[in-house]
Amino acid sequence: MPISIDLAFAFRMEKVTDVLLQFEAAIIPEQTLIETDTWVTTGEHFARISAQDDIGERVWIRAEGRYDVSYKAKVAVNRLPAEIGNLEYLLPHDLPGEAVQYLFDSRYCPADRFQPFVEAEFGGTEGGARVAAIHDWMVQNLAYEPGSSTPNTTALDSFIERRGICRDFAHVMVTLARASGIPARFVSCFAPGVDPPDFHAVAEVFLTDPTTPGGGAWFLVDATGMSGPDEIVKIGVGRDAADVSFITSFGPTEFLEKHVRVTREA
Amino acid sequence: MPISIDLAFAFRMEKVTDVLLQFEAAIIPEQTLIETDTWVTTGEHFARISAQDDIGERVWIRAEGRYDVSYKAKVAVNRLPAEIGNLEYLLPHDLPGEAVQYLFDSRYCPADRFQPFVEAEFGGTEGGARVAAIHDWMVQNLAYEPGSSTPNTTALDSFIERRGICRDFAHVMVTLARASGIPARFVSCFAPGVDPPDFHAVAEVFLTDPTTPGGGAWFLVDATGMSGPDEIVKIGVGRDAADVSFITSFGPTEFLEKHVRVTREA
Amino acid sequence: MPISIDLAFAFRMEKVTDVLLQFEAAIIPEQTLIETDTWVTTGEHFARISAQDDIGERVWIRAEGRYDVSYKAKVAVNRLPAEIGNLEYLLPHDLPGEAVQYLFDSRYCPADRFQPFVEAEFGGTEGGARVAAIHDWMVQNLAYEPGSSTPNTTALDSFIERRGICRDFAHVMVTLARASGIPARFVSCFAPGVDPPDFHAVAEVFLTDPTTPGGGAWFLVDATGMSGPDEIVKIGVGRDAADVSFITSFGPTEFLEKHVRVTREA
Amino acid sequence: MPISIDLAFAFRMEKVTDVLLQFEAAIIPEQTLIETDTWVTTGEHFARISAQDDIGERVWIRAEGRYDVSYKAKVAVNRLPAEIGNLEYLLPHDLPGEAVQYLFDSRYCPADRFQPFVEAEFGGTEGGARVAAIHDWMVQNLAYEPGSSTPNTTALDSFIERRGICRDFAHVMVTLARASGIPARFVSCFAPGVDPPDFHAVAEVFLTDPTTPGGGAWFLVDATGMSGPDEIVKIGVGRDAADVSFITSFGPTEFLEKHVRVTREA
Repeated sequence: MPISIDLAFAFRMEKVTDVLLQFEAAIIPEQTLIETDTWVTTGEHFARISAQDDIGERVWIRAEGRYDVSYKAKVAVNRLPAEIGNLEYLLPHDLPGEAVQYLFDSRYCPADRFQPFVEAEFGGTEGGARVAAIHDWMVQNLAYEPGSSTPNTTALDSFIERRGICRDFAHVMVTLARASGIPARFVSCFAPGVDPPDFHAVAEVFLTDPTTPGGGAWFLVDATGMSGPDEIVKIGVGRDAADVSFITSFGPTEFLEKHVRVTREA
Repeated sequence: MPISIDLAFAFRMEKVTDVLLQFEAAIIPEQTLIETDTWVTTGEHFARISAQDDIGERVWIRAEGRYDVSYKAKVAVNRLPAEIGNLEYLLPHDLPGEAVQYLFDSRYCPADRFQPFVEAEFGGTEGGARVAAIHDWMVQNLAYEPGSSTPNTTALDSFIERRGICRDFAHVMVTLARASGIPARFVSCFAPGVDPPDFHAVAEVFLTDPTTPGGGAWFLVDATGMSGPDEIVKIGVGRDAADVSFITSFGPTEFLEKHVRVTREA
Repeated sequence: MPISIDLAFAFRMEKVTDVLLQFEAAIIPEQTLIETDTWVTTGEHFARISAQDDIGERVWIRAEGRYDVSYKAKVAVNRLPAEIGNLEYLLPHDLPGEAVQYLFDSRYCPADRFQPFVEAEFGGTEGGARVAAIHDWMVQNLAYEPGSSTPNTTALDSFIERRGICRDFAHVMVTLARASGIPARFVSCFAPGVDPPDFHAVAEVFLTDPTTPGGGAWFLVDATGMSGPDEIVKIGVGRDAADVSFITSFGPTEFLEKHVRVTREA
Repeated sequence: MPISIDLAFAFRMEKVTDVLLQFEAAIIPEQTLIETDTWVTTGEHFARISAQDDIGERVWIRAEGRYDVSYKAKVAVNRLPAEIGNLEYLLPHDLPGEAVQYLFDSRYCPADRFQPFVEAEFGGTEGGARVAAIHDWMVQNLAYEPGSSTPNTTALDSFIERRGICRDFAHVMVTLARASGIPARFVSCFAPGVDPPDFHAVAEVFLTDPTTPGGGAWFLVDATGMSGPDEIVKIGVGRDAADVSFITSFGPTEFLEKHVRVTREA
């Protein structure tokens, strides 16, 4: 049951401008690209670079005027769902070096300020049980409200106002996990079941599965409840939304339109 | 004229705790370690991992009770001072992949919010001339005031209140550079001339020197005016202070004392 | 040349709800109401109370379902334009007691944080000359951009992002005046020339006119440049926008529509 | 069992400066001043003005150099303790005009942002029961930690970090009460039992006691648990701490010392 992705968006640059895009399914072991087709307007420059943690690619373009992007893909997700609550905590000093940066605060995730809260609310749990407890708390306390946040909204804002969209849910999960000493990163992705259809965002936590060998691994967790690990197609990862915007423009750009359709094939 | 470093600090952990330390001069081409001596209390665990961008090392320790760290080093700095104002801008799409993350917002550097300001205040300059203009603006508008900031203080706070310490000056420089499309990172370092003596922090911007071959490079800039590139001994780098704290504790820790002495040898 | 006001708005309450409204021209010496007509839906309760500083009235209603408000007025403004730059500063201890609260910080006006900025930028001026200098600085540095702010936007946000709407301009003026030791309040008003037509907001500062007897008085200042003191029809005043919202609902309310037309009669 | 107050503080002004002080027990029906003695350094100017809501007085001084204030008083508190949980809610439209401003957001109390939280956490309670529920929640979730906050700390910060001092506890109580539609103000006061001895701050909510005639009244609530209504000596009230600072200086001032001793007479 592969996932079909149909994406199109367009923007206009008044003058020649550099724009960074990240919108394609990443080529990584946990998801197989069966078909893929990327089409963009021809401009002055088009180049691909590796994205964060070598997950997916960023595309630099340099162009002027209207710019259209169209992307179609069929992806088989090989990832097995894990029972988050059964995963175990790795002592910080046992973390691989590349996971360490995901313990630190980032633009939208001021985790250090939440240490007293997580201790008080989730004390007595650790590792996967902690993440499951955070997930349950979020389901009970945060409302999914389209239009309730802005690009400046941080996890702190969403925590206070008890509402947000997928981006905000991912930020709150990342923040409370990091405040618990668990590395957590932000995942930009496609998923069927996102309503209204759009890019999706979830969190990923670094834990270890006691039933499999080999140390720690990243495990997806979507506190919005809109997607499961067996249907999430990753685009990229980062500290938070600041790192994996699907479009970052280095000059004035007018956004024109966006259409996202993600379906599970029969 | 090497730089001599003499550092000692101590903290106490009530129970067995993981602590991440980063306090030693980095071994990198631009600075040669002539002598070095690290001494720490013996604990349950001591291990080194590479730090961000492979500059310096982080040390994981796991211990209980009082923990002492003592570090002595003599370092020759090979870095040549550059005339910041003569450096040139690299178009974003010409940046090496590893510099791209330093264009993005981070915990203490909400750069996107400053785009209108940098355009209005520094419009007409770019590249090194932009950095020099930011530097001059900071010298005129920011006061160096020990005790004026807290660990929660962001570049936005320092910009509003027009004051800060080295950490805050570095954050403002990083923020305004990124808002100008110039990759900028935070550098934790040792430098003589820091008063009162302590760890120091400066910014580093990614530009290109038209008189030397080979694309872009990182150039140090210290808007506090307390240190120059030929006497800065780098410890580590990061998006901002969240990434290169000299001590990050994963449990309750009481900080006991710190002594820093950095001198230029005759 | 009186000012004609034609206002209509409507909202819907799912269940019986208390709502506080403030939308009518205030009856105060500086503006004469030639004609006035207020019409509202009949509900459970309708009562008027004096508004802040006895300028205008607040209306409490209690109702359910759709609620319509319609208001028409013709107002002669008797206020003489003053040359702000010629007004003089009153020493804080010479202020009348009721002006003192307007020296303090409020929700959207964290004035204390701007003391270093006003000293650095406007040092050497005081009183009306200070306000004129702030006004000029704002004209040069802030862009009027509909849609650029939200109900959470503070003067600090607008100062950083260098843009806002009338509400934000008034907040910045109030903040920088208070940081300069000048009492300043927020004025909700009607004015022709507001584009797009809507309620308007300006600031008012407490200074003294050396050419007229009798201590201090409040003087209007509109840093957006959209209105002058001889055409501003005051609705109410407050510490900031938190005090003079035209609608404050004590329960879930859906806002349906608003039409504002303000014209200068021939 | 009157309360004895012994207060002394001193500060230094480099040049002639206006300073606003508010440090004396208010003369109001609920507390009788048996003895009172205020002594201050002689300066250029000394004048009293009524403070907010006519509770207590503010003192304007204008002076230069070292300035000493000494204040001794013996106060009988006539206020009867009320069982907060039994008090009843007044519909907003039944509030007296002067209570309405205490429904609005203020500098340190961004109440509107907490409406979803209070609904979720305390839904099903109203009036005094709501205040009692907030009080219990605070006792369970906030730690009293001297040194944990700064003059910039808002109720939002304290709520996130789950700690603060009396000023912060009062701000959180005021914020959550206002978010619940209950007018709430900040009370600066003296109280025995404050440890370490200092000025104290509590909240006051506007509710109605069903067992006594005559509409609503203000009721004290101290979520720190350090004082009860029968031993609180009010100095002044305000929207929040911004309105009732014991010292507000309109020029550079160095604070020198402060001694506060409040005892319950045998």
